[in-house]
Amino acid sequence: MIVVKTGGSRGINLDYVLEDIARQTEPLVLVHGGSDELNTVSTQLGKPPRMVTSPSGYTSRYTDPETLDIFNMVYCGKRNKRIVEKLQQLGANAVGLSGVDGRLLEGRRKPTLRIVEDGRKKVLRNDYTGRVEKANVPLLTSLLDQGYLPVITPPAISYEGEIINVDGDRAAAVIADALGADRLVILSNTPGFLEDAEDEDTLIPRLAREDIDEAIATHARDRMKKKLLGAKEALEVGVGKVILGDGRIPGPVTAALRGQGTVIG
Amino acid sequence: MIVVKTGGSRGINLDYVLEDIARQTEPLVLVHGGSDELNTVSTQLGKPPRMVTSPSGYTSRYTDPETLDIFNMVYCGKRNKRIVEKLQQLGANAVGLSGVDGRLLEGRRKPTLRIVEDGRKKVLRNDYTGRVEKANVPLLTSLLDQGYLPVITPPAISYEGEIINVDGDRAAAVIADALGADRLVILSNTPGFLEDAEDEDTLIPRLAREDIDEAIATHARDRMKKKLLGAKEALEVGVGKVILGDGRIPGPVTAALRGQGTVIG
Repeated sequence: MIVVKTGGSRGINLDYVLEDIARQTEPLVLVHGGSDELNTVSTQLGKPPRMVTSPSGYTSRYTDPETLDIFNMVYCGKRNKRIVEKLQQLGANAVGLSGVDGRLLEGRRKPTLRIVEDGRKKVLRNDYTGRVEKANVPLLTSLLDQGYLPVITPPAISYEGEIINVDGDRAAAVIADALGADRLVILSNTPGFLEDAEDEDTLIPRLAREDIDEAIATHARDRMKKKLLGAKEALEVGVGKVILGDGRIPGPVTAALRGQGTVIG
Repeated sequence: MIVVKTGGSRGINLDYVLEDIARQTEPLVLVHGGSDELNTVSTQLGKPPRMVTSPSGYTSRYTDPETLDIFNMVYCGKRNKRIVEKLQQLGANAVGLSGVDGRLLEGRRKPTLRIVEDGRKKVLRNDYTGRVEKANVPLLTSLLDQGYLPVITPPAISYEGEIINVDGDRAAAVIADALGADRLVILSNTPGFLEDAEDEDTLIPRLAREDIDEAIATHARDRMKKKLLGAKEALEVGVGKVILGDGRIPGPVTAALRGQGTVIG
């Protein structure tokens, strides 16, 4: 069992990713994002993204109900259905689901969003973000047993039944754990984890579990921090290996499974 | 087994519809539309809808790839996920799917779109519309057997694997047929089929199968024509009864199942 997460960043070649996924012979679950496109569509709709920074330095999207509707439009509507269409054309019987459907991805809604703005701490209300804690294993295995390829996208659903914006890498880690996957491949628009984010020749090919915290603290940029955190959590719950692979090259999943990129754990 | 179709028109009280659906004890599939909201979002995105008329007088939406993306955003993204959320909050374990997912609704893409504009016949290309012919019964029954409430939305998928815009009433009729449903409830923003569309006191409470063609030819407006056509096709393939019910009143599904509205067949 393999879980593959592909980001929505510019540079990732989605055709390469999907062609390679359709070629895999092992059971597979695909998780995708769409944040760059969400920024574009939000701006087109007169609701530009509001990115906020937590006191501990992580960036996230302020997600009020209107933003959440646009989030659903881009992730569950435009991107998910075009990915499913492409996989169907490639002969893979894809089924697209969000975390809301059948409570596929359940988690806790953050009661308030604490941010730092202009050097001051603030609390934002009316925010619908949270953290995935559980995946609906019977629903996923039922689809896999019937030969379907689940294509999963945020958002998730809170225990109280509200749609919540959640991190896709974390969602992929929870799914990999729940299904007992031995490998989680996270594709982005870099060759893997770089010692110097500006220099692709500084790829770190192997990262031991015990070195993740230091890597987060010292090297990584924001998005990479979240990927490393996701990797750490996946390893903690029993996923064998997390591979940060390059989503820009042909055959990106196969390359990552062969150890190209940064292998963690 | 009951199949309920609810339109996306102004006036339909979606809260009433969903509360009543969550209350039903029989297995149920919900099919929904979203055309009014699609018009709004398309216009906001600088791509106002282009409605075209066929030589036989039916109106449809010209659906080029860009329109199809917006279609997916509104139907599969915004509307489907908010409906699933609401049903989850009401205790129904809803799973939202489009016709693309697992080839749930398959059909034929129209090779070209023939229209009449300014009195002249024209052919439009690059249009992605079609007609649903088949439903994926094993996928639907697998979900129903696991206790899920399928919430289905257009688009569908062509035999060649392209996303196609299809009529939601027709999709509901094909699903009702495929599942052997004995009743198909179609909710809209009128009390049912009206002899005079302007006068709600002219409700026709019963319509025999053999009178549908005349009703289509003489009375009905465009949207109602399509509903009557959908009803006719559903009856032809073995659905016991089609009820055109009022989606504006409390308990609209229960009322329709008790015979309020126009009962056909």
